[in-house]
Amino acid sequence: MSESRRLDITPTGTEPPRGMRDVLPLEAEVRDAAARIILDTYRRHGFRRIETPAVESLRLLTRGEGGDNEKLIFKILKRGEKLDLAGVRSEDDLADLGLRFDLTVPLARYYAHNHARLPRPLKAVQIGPVWRAERPQKGRFRQFTQCDIDILGVREPVAEVELILATTEALTALGLEELTVRLNDRRLLTAIAGRCGFAPDRHGSLFVSLDKWDKLGRQGVAAELAAAGHPAAATASLTTLLGDFDPRRGLDSLRPWLGGVDDGGAFEALACILRTAGTAGCSGPRVVFDPTLVRGMGYYTGPIFEIGSAQFPSSIAGGGRYDQLIGKILGRDVPATGFSIGFERVVTLLLERPTGTLPGAERIALLFEAATPDLGPVLAAARRLRAEGFLVSLEPLGRKAGSQRAALAEHGFDGVAVFDGTELPAVRRFRGAAGAEADR
Amino acid sequence: MSESRRLDITPTGTEPPRGMRDVLPLEAEVRDAAARIILDTYRRHGFRRIETPAVESLRLLTRGEGGDNEKLIFKILKRGEKLDLAGVRSEDDLADLGLRFDLTVPLARYYAHNHARLPRPLKAVQIGPVWRAERPQKGRFRQFTQCDIDILGVREPVAEVELILATTEALTALGLEELTVRLNDRRLLTAIAGRCGFAPDRHGSLFVSLDKWDKLGRQGVAAELAAAGHPAAATASLTTLLGDFDPRRGLDSLRPWLGGVDDGGAFEALACILRTAGTAGCSGPRVVFDPTLVRGMGYYTGPIFEIGSAQFPSSIAGGGRYDQLIGKILGRDVPATGFSIGFERVVTLLLERPTGTLPGAERIALLFEAATPDLGPVLAAARRLRAEGFLVSLEPLGRKAGSQRAALAEHGFDGVAVFDGTELPAVRRFRGAAGAEADR
Repeated sequence: MSESRRLDITPTGTEPPRGMRDVLPLEAEVRDAAARIILDTYRRHGFRRIETPAVESLRLLTRGEGGDNEKLIFKILKRGEKLDLAGVRSEDDLADLGLRFDLTVPLARYYAHNHARLPRPLKAVQIGPVWRAERPQKGRFRQFTQCDIDILGVREPVAEVELILATTEALTALGLEELTVRLNDRRLLTAIAGRCGFAPDRHGSLFVSLDKWDKLGRQGVAAELAAAGHPAAATASLTTLLGDFDPRRGLDSLRPWLGGVDDGGAFEALACILRTAGTAGCSGPRVVFDPTLVRGMGYYTGPIFEIGSAQFPSSIAGGGRYDQLIGKILGRDVPATGFSIGFERVVTLLLERPTGTLPGAERIALLFEAATPDLGPVLAAARRLRAEGFLVSLEPLGRKAGSQRAALAEHGFDGVAVFDGTELPAVRRFRGAAGAEADR
Repeated sequence: MSESRRLDITPTGTEPPRGMRDVLPLEAEVRDAAARIILDTYRRHGFRRIETPAVESLRLLTRGEGGDNEKLIFKILKRGEKLDLAGVRSEDDLADLGLRFDLTVPLARYYAHNHARLPRPLKAVQIGPVWRAERPQKGRFRQFTQCDIDILGVREPVAEVELILATTEALTALGLEELTVRLNDRRLLTAIAGRCGFAPDRHGSLFVSLDKWDKLGRQGVAAELAAAGHPAAATASLTTLLGDFDPRRGLDSLRPWLGGVDDGGAFEALACILRTAGTAGCSGPRVVFDPTLVRGMGYYTGPIFEIGSAQFPSSIAGGGRYDQLIGKILGRDVPATGFSIGFERVVTLLLERPTGTLPGAERIALLFEAATPDLGPVLAAARRLRAEGFLVSLEPLGRKAGSQRAALAEHGFDGVAVFDGTELPAVRRFRGAAGAEADR
């Protein structure tokens, strides 16, 4: 094909759309392995995989449950006779479908539509792509994978305990270490805010500032609350309570302070989760009460939680109870609580490690003379090597053995076998990533 | 939540968008298991998973390689300042991105963009959703999963042999029986058409009719060719050749007939594939030459193939060599051949079978008194049962044991264990789907 032909197509470019990406084989294998570990762990804990379509109606996606994500929807052009270009007045005339921006809003619709045919309770695990038209930046993409785990139909804190144990087990199986689960409750936050003197209609604004406690610290949050016009006495009372909180004394240290305030059962729920999840076997995670934990989404109604690892600065997984979200679509409330694992963060962590830390079979190339007239014996040798447990790719022998092996090592091969007419050729494993040295 | 609130949202509906679908747990498990078997088989054969975004530029999607699928693209509305409603004259002003309609066109772009960083040859396996705005009908959806396997960079028929062996192994592992691979070559079709007297510029029309040989038979195809204005002598010559073809004599019976016509190497390639793939070990598939096989897509340039099973009327997988497609994007040709497995057909077949035919661990419910004050021992029992290999879901004991068990059985549970204070409660397996009877 001529060079001019090539130039002809250059304006199109061959790159993926802005903010989207191609996944190369080595990363794809890590993603696959991570997804399997997660799915297998939740399956052992009785969770079931479910799937919803990538596309949902804009009426569903713009109901207000998606927060700022609703501004980032990729909308889908109406088709054919439904599209009247002359009569277009607003985007509503052009689109009635969009790509999902999370897995929670679709789950609520899914449950509302299918509940009669679903197990009760429903313990669901979802893993799949979502789309957000965010300004592309390093490490943030417009299509990315979310992994959500939810229990629908269980009011008691056993649901939170199960979610925490299964999720920490999955993260541990992925090789994440020193996990800490931070725990709080939206009802407790509300009770504390009321007790400190914040008016109920200002709680939303308060919680947005409080969510930055980790980043801004006590003084920073106090300044932001003052700037937002919250009463000085309430702010002082709250920052003193939270600033003086002693994690070693934990939840119990708040009990006398709360006095007779109705916390809607938050205290008992948190106590149960801390007691049960925090002591579940020798491999149980560290679970701590953190009264500054808020979590962003408006739909949370009870216990909320986040998991961090000593290996990673930000949280790896988070979630909470949202007993009223499904009711907004189904028409009757269904108790619900869920976790979202930061799948892309987990993959980033795994990719930064030395290769070979996720378990898997060895990948080898079976090299053969391309001019071999009879492929039968080559194929038979490949079958034998597969039966021995190797992943075997047939590859023609290159002219330069050294550079061929270096290329194979670079692309994730663990070694080579050269077809020599025998049934089971010897496998030579690469030493190091260069692949130049091999031993038997 | 009040009934009026519910009515308020009824116009939105809770159903998925038209032509799209929710996947319930029992089907999701079959889909997952099928995808794993396919991926594991190809991995053993040296194939690597790759992923491309769901969204591609419309310039790529409408280059003409997608055939009729290009009319079925879901287009994505431009966003923000890029969208000028007042100046809209055509759909091009509204959209420059679309959802992919297959995995082949994105693969060509992916290879053109990333080839310098990819293994050579690239043996790729993709599995993922595609979208087509087809008129919804039974068993045909607007989002469905495709599974494509391609070898890029290998000119020799060893690539076809590998594809055929790996694909039949995957289908066999899925439980499909009595597989037959039908094989032909586009170059041979062209040579035959020329020899019979069809003008080269009419070959496209000829092949469209020939593709219906299975359905219409010799007379039907002859009638269609006559109606399309093809020369009567050419039609007679071709239908005699194909109608009299004796599959027992196979490819060789065509040799004298072809005489000195240049078939571009098709004959030798087919002979090699038939000889090698057809005799690969005792589990090798049945591979037959079928001169009436055409396959729809215009981009095929060499050997083409389809796999059928005695259990299923239409083909389960198909593909062929397309040595010129990647060049149209990259600017230089790259030899390529690939298979597409009809993933949705495979899932349909698996779902029609009695349950339990795909291998997997037993799923049980560990039933406990919801009022149990201390969940620790219940969780410990669940851990023990998981260590024994069960998938264990904690579920509160229902009031009616019989109907609870029937519901569990209906949702794919294999049995129950009732928490009795011991470390390893006995598992009672259901007999039959009703779940009412249990044994120890």
